[in-house]
Amino acid sequence: MTEPFSFTLKTTDGAARRGEFVTPHGSVQTPAFMPVGTQGTVKGLTPEQVRDTGAEILLGNTYHLMLRPTAERVAELGGLHRFMNWPRPILTDSGGFQVMSLSQLRKLDEQGVTFKSHLDGAMFHLTPERAIEIQALLGADISMQLDECLRLPVERAEMERAMALSLRWAERSKKAFEDRARPGAALFGIVQGGDDMSLRAQSARELVEIGFQGYAIGGLAVGEPQAVMLKVVEETTPSLPADRPRYLMGVGTPDDLVEAVARGVDMFDCVMPTRNGRHGVAFTRFGALNLKNARYADDATPLDPDSPHPLARAYSRAYLHHLVKAGEMLGAILLSAINVAYYQTLMAGMRAAIEQGRFADFRDATKKSWAAGLAAGLQQGNSTDGAASLEP
Amino acid sequence: MTEPFSFTLKTTDGAARRGEFVTPHGSVQTPAFMPVGTQGTVKGLTPEQVRDTGAEILLGNTYHLMLRPTAERVAELGGLHRFMNWPRPILTDSGGFQVMSLSQLRKLDEQGVTFKSHLDGAMFHLTPERAIEIQALLGADISMQLDECLRLPVERAEMERAMALSLRWAERSKKAFEDRARPGAALFGIVQGGDDMSLRAQSARELVEIGFQGYAIGGLAVGEPQAVMLKVVEETTPSLPADRPRYLMGVGTPDDLVEAVARGVDMFDCVMPTRNGRHGVAFTRFGALNLKNARYADDATPLDPDSPHPLARAYSRAYLHHLVKAGEMLGAILLSAINVAYYQTLMAGMRAAIEQGRFADFRDATKKSWAAGLAAGLQQGNSTDGAASLEP
Repeated sequence: MTEPFSFTLKTTDGAARRGEFVTPHGSVQTPAFMPVGTQGTVKGLTPEQVRDTGAEILLGNTYHLMLRPTAERVAELGGLHRFMNWPRPILTDSGGFQVMSLSQLRKLDEQGVTFKSHLDGAMFHLTPERAIEIQALLGADISMQLDECLRLPVERAEMERAMALSLRWAERSKKAFEDRARPGAALFGIVQGGDDMSLRAQSARELVEIGFQGYAIGGLAVGEPQAVMLKVVEETTPSLPADRPRYLMGVGTPDDLVEAVARGVDMFDCVMPTRNGRHGVAFTRFGALNLKNARYADDATPLDPDSPHPLARAYSRAYLHHLVKAGEMLGAILLSAINVAYYQTLMAGMRAAIEQGRFADFRDATKKSWAAGLAAGLQQGNSTDGAASLEP
Repeated sequence: MTEPFSFTLKTTDGAARRGEFVTPHGSVQTPAFMPVGTQGTVKGLTPEQVRDTGAEILLGNTYHLMLRPTAERVAELGGLHRFMNWPRPILTDSGGFQVMSLSQLRKLDEQGVTFKSHLDGAMFHLTPERAIEIQALLGADISMQLDECLRLPVERAEMERAMALSLRWAERSKKAFEDRARPGAALFGIVQGGDDMSLRAQSARELVEIGFQGYAIGGLAVGEPQAVMLKVVEETTPSLPADRPRYLMGVGTPDDLVEAVARGVDMFDCVMPTRNGRHGVAFTRFGALNLKNARYADDATPLDPDSPHPLARAYSRAYLHHLVKAGEMLGAILLSAINVAYYQTLMAGMRAAIEQGRFADFRDATKKSWAAGLAAGLQQGNSTDGAASLEP
């Protein structure tokens, strides 16, 4: 388990890619979905339960962990893998996104960003160098550069400024990473530029010149329509080297994942499966089911009798409805596990389809299955259709 | 798994008893601790996690289940075992205790009790016959008679009235149970009489005359000092037949369990391990540890490196502290599981000690271990010493 980071593209089917990357904590099959472990835990699930969903890699949030328990404390306690009892790969974000969305009184300049903790008002300073240092203290297998992420829509001049700043921070991040990276760890750059394709192209080109072990597409799933997001993805992936993994940050719904894989994306993270699970929504072959709905009160059918995941077969819709209505933790727990497992099943299905050259068929069949659930009225009362919600 | 209820007393050591009871859903080794599944779930734990603690039997709350999802609905969905995916024995209480402690506007008369649901204000009527019917609909392996439970201290006349009413309800409960019990299920009577030993003796004597498959001691752990509770237990158990299990309801702390087993009790239930787990307190060999305490922030030691339960060995005190401070569900989940497992370990230790005729030594060693934890400052900042807190 001490191999350095590497990525192998195994095969393609149209723009869809089937690959594998190796990290010091093990390998990951792509396309891959990373459950989010914001505060050192995937909300509501033990590491064993996360593993049982089929997940091979988690995302950890630098912003949350730097505030509490602090990166230095995690390092003293043996690093994030040991701290949270997850011996497999971990990718950490840079903290930039949460600084923008969660903290108060932030001041951004060339050097970095100063912000007030949302927990206790303490002041923090985050620079590209400090973001890399924190991620090294956490022991990330994959670190992300610090970038500036804007909400859409935004003026082009502002978008260009943020994109250019993110490029300068990319260069500083790489230098800092070379100075103190953990053996075998990887650093990814982040393409910015909003919905302006010339800015995206420039960002991708200059990042590739700097050179990273992987490339993320950032600044999406921040309120724009799905069509805009997919257009940016579709026009950005061709600018990225085929032999490096591509990571679409903070995305998304099951449909977003299928469509982004169709456009050449290899990696995803999103809080949707766990957050929706805590709010009584189950992701299934039949689409997203709102278990709060009274139609499930007497439904003795398992959530999905044909799911490969035991939890989706073991509990009736009526029981899950009861747990959700009663506000019982177990409802949130079971639905979080079932949802992460559904995401993993979806990714595994896409991987197999790409290998066998039938990705287009898989995409059609998956959408037909969701549509059938909608036609059967199973999705009645849902509130989670449409684009991915914002983190966290 | 269709054997009728039976109890075998295997051996004794002083007043402590080692036994086994068989139910239609499997057998249970005694002395036994039953985790509480109030609303059809042991709070925060999957049935697999409950089983992994070593628990062999759960308690279900008639009051909560009759309000939501209703006993009729549980019956239509195949019974409580299937509903909650727990194929092992279940004991249900009669609902009486929660009616007294949770509902509003209750009116009690000879016939039964009328009360207003704490959920939505709907009116319900609970009689001895209806309590038996509900428990049969739920599919309980062991049902409890409806009784009237008073808080201590209380006037003797009032205590006598409630005790006598509970005896008349015991008789009606038995008749109702004989009319419609599920095959192989058992009915337990409940000794009342507060802290008045002549009333307790009368209650026990008359219950035994009616004849039940087991006898509970009710009306304790309702605010009285531990010494009072233990005195009542000590003077009541000799009045109960040796060949029937004895169940001390709603008790208690680990120390309560050891002292009650020493006085001849076979069965317990209590929300303490799960409720305290949700509040950041861990029950261990070292006593009760309050993980919120800052002293654990940098403590890389597992909660209990020598625990037989994997979860107590897998996570550091620092990590548990972090989860509790961050308000993460996983803190409540892990501590609930660890606490129920500690209770089960304690019961298993008592069972082995009784078998080997060394119960007194086990009791001493257990108390010394708790005292050593206290001396080492591990229990600093605790709020859970003393008598068991009230349900639920």
